[in-house]
Amino acid sequence: MEFDYKMVIVTRKNLDLSPGKLAAQVAHAAVACALDTKKENSKWFNKWQIEGAKKAIVKVESEKDFYPLKEKADELNIVSHIIADAGLTEIPAGTKTVLGIGPAPSNLIDQITGDLQLL
Amino acid sequence: MEFDYKMVIVTRKNLDLSPGKLAAQVAHAAVACALDTKKENSKWFNKWQIEGAKKAIVKVESEKDFYPLKEKADELNIVSHIIADAGLTEIPAGTKTVLGIGPAPSNLIDQITGDLQLL
Repeated sequence: MEFDYKMVIVTRKNLDLSPGKLAAQVAHAAVACALDTKKENSKWFNKWQIEGAKKAIVKVESEKDFYPLKEKADELNIVSHIIADAGLTEIPAGTKTVLGIGPAPSNLIDQITGDLQLL
Repeated sequence: MEFDYKMVIVTRKNLDLSPGKLAAQVAHAAVACALDTKKENSKWFNKWQIEGAKKAIVKVESEKDFYPLKEKADELNIVSHIIADAGLTEIPAGTKTVLGIGPAPSNLIDQITGDLQLL
């Protein structure tokens, strides 16, 4: 089954988060990106929702890899959010944990994250 | 720091998901619950957002434990969603993976999930 629309959430290999902490960070990114896309590009948002709101979780080495991906998303007018942790547990406050991108057409998102490994 | 509003996502101990798969399921629940609460109870939604959109990830033993929690959420007029996986990877299609509850005032949510262990 191919999805025409998806959201991608980029995680960091060099940040050792528990599965629960990681899931919370991914959820933060997903909610922020979904709400902004609903507001800024409701056509993409609605198509993504109707298809089942596909989310792919991928990984990069470290925080610095987030920035060229975010820049590419900006160029393509795709919503993106870097999540900074409140630092209540596990990691220092302000640590950049994940980058959410989309939802957007899969062929556009793949221009940004198509080469990244699934988590 | 105390949060007055939160969302809780309930996971299953007896379902062995990879961290990425788990994160995607939690994100599904978070987005579905956030969008519905925005529509049905924008006051709670806005307060939760302004506070930083706290999400707690907890665990129960198995799928059957989802249902009394969902029932309690319904009684308290709190949005909840049980996520069924599309089954493209790891687990059979239709497997109930997580239950999202809220966002809602923490004292109400704690009546439902206050006794559950953090993941």
